[in-house]
Amino acid sequence: MLIDGNPGRTVPALDRGLHYGDGLFETIAVQAGRPLLLERHLRRLQSGCARLDIPCPDLQLLAGETGQVALGSERAVVKIIVTRGSGGRGYAPPGEPRPLRIVSLHEWPEYPAVARTTGVDVALCRIRLARQPALAGLKHLNRLEQVLARGEVLAAGALEGVVLDTSGFAIEGTMSNLFAIRGDDLWTPDLSACGVEGVVRTEILDRAAAWSLRTVVRECTPEDIATADEAFLTNSIIGVWPLRAIAGRTLRGTARATEIARRLVAEGAIPPP
Amino acid sequence: MLIDGNPGRTVPALDRGLHYGDGLFETIAVQAGRPLLLERHLRRLQSGCARLDIPCPDLQLLAGETGQVALGSERAVVKIIVTRGSGGRGYAPPGEPRPLRIVSLHEWPEYPAVARTTGVDVALCRIRLARQPALAGLKHLNRLEQVLARGEVLAAGALEGVVLDTSGFAIEGTMSNLFAIRGDDLWTPDLSACGVEGVVRTEILDRAAAWSLRTVVRECTPEDIATADEAFLTNSIIGVWPLRAIAGRTLRGTARATEIARRLVAEGAIPPP
Repeated sequence: MLIDGNPGRTVPALDRGLHYGDGLFETIAVQAGRPLLLERHLRRLQSGCARLDIPCPDLQLLAGETGQVALGSERAVVKIIVTRGSGGRGYAPPGEPRPLRIVSLHEWPEYPAVARTTGVDVALCRIRLARQPALAGLKHLNRLEQVLARGEVLAAGALEGVVLDTSGFAIEGTMSNLFAIRGDDLWTPDLSACGVEGVVRTEILDRAAAWSLRTVVRECTPEDIATADEAFLTNSIIGVWPLRAIAGRTLRGTARATEIARRLVAEGAIPPP
Repeated sequence: MLIDGNPGRTVPALDRGLHYGDGLFETIAVQAGRPLLLERHLRRLQSGCARLDIPCPDLQLLAGETGQVALGSERAVVKIIVTRGSGGRGYAPPGEPRPLRIVSLHEWPEYPAVARTTGVDVALCRIRLARQPALAGLKHLNRLEQVLARGEVLAAGALEGVVLDTSGFAIEGTMSNLFAIRGDDLWTPDLSACGVEGVVRTEILDRAAAWSLRTVVRECTPEDIATADEAFLTNSIIGVWPLRAIAGRTLRGTARATEIARRLVAEGAIPPP
């Protein structure tokens, strides 16, 4: 683990990341020593920093540190955290923030292989996501909603759950983005009020046209998902998990989601199964 | 600063407080070496832990550590942070969490004396609070909304601002709770969808009857505040700040808010000016 570039295991107890969740993070899959979609991750981090007015560490520096901690790992996860650092008066950000960066290596989380083939059955989480346009899309450090949602998924013995917002729209999984295929349309929930804009989500939206899919970013009801031809969940680590069923209703198939996963693996965008 | 009871300045970089804001905090005024409303702070922390399913550290232990760091301070602030500790798989809480506790001493923040006498002029912040009943009321570590709101207040050169929720109701100040006096009624915003249930707020609600005020916890519009006889802001450090004006509209007076402040000081509930 590198803390501001130096090997370490601790951070200042006064850091604003701890006190307020005042920062952002990235979770990057490492495959055969190579961090996947690294540039996309770093660009997202940079744009998140810009939105929160945190001076972003140099991206070359972060890329180098990511490579350094990933070195020699066949399969692992690198997590980058950037906080606004210490200082400021109470909630108020300091005038000249000195961001803290943490680049750490984590074990690859093993999920059942069936998740990527047969797909996953998901329930709707009880907790709803609050609608906050000022923070929507950001992978920031205020993640109590996800902690509570993930606790529900764990308690249910499931692999993932779908979270609605307080208006009842389906937004995402507890740790993943959500897509639905309807004819030649590829729907994914609008994230302008809540949710995290995942890098695999963006990658898919950018590639969809080449796969003859028309992207539709819109409000999606749970019904929209349940009645789709197919649906699937994505993140940098799980890649693509087809949805076998949502809230007890089985979807028509998983063939096209599986094909999207195959192409993304071939492009080096997501890890192979 | 005490970290799990030991003098220290750093915390584990894998702590969930940093990664997810998975924890709670208290900010306690110390006056002549004595932490004010300590029992109320600790009880709130305990009930917050219960809501988030974090095992709460022993309250006697926390009281002892608070006293230890406050020892000899004429006027200071003690901050207690309790996190869910390290561990768990991603967002999912660990099965047997080992909470981390940080008890730290901070300089007394000096605000202009006029804030407690003439009162403060507040604007309405542009950022709105998201409505999230699952976290409402809690003094948790997900405070990006407050960071952004406080940034607005600072940029405006003001002492405090009032924050509305996404439905347009006035909820609180960026670091304080909000009250309005209308006849013999004492209004304060309902915090079941968002906001922090401050200990001074609770103290006032508990004492109001003895002051011949009827408490009314309800949805308050900015108009309700602007047209009240008086209004005021409270927290453990500032005590009571009368509102001189809100969004450019001057309130009728400050006498009763000042009287409430005087009584709370006399009771040892808030620090003297």
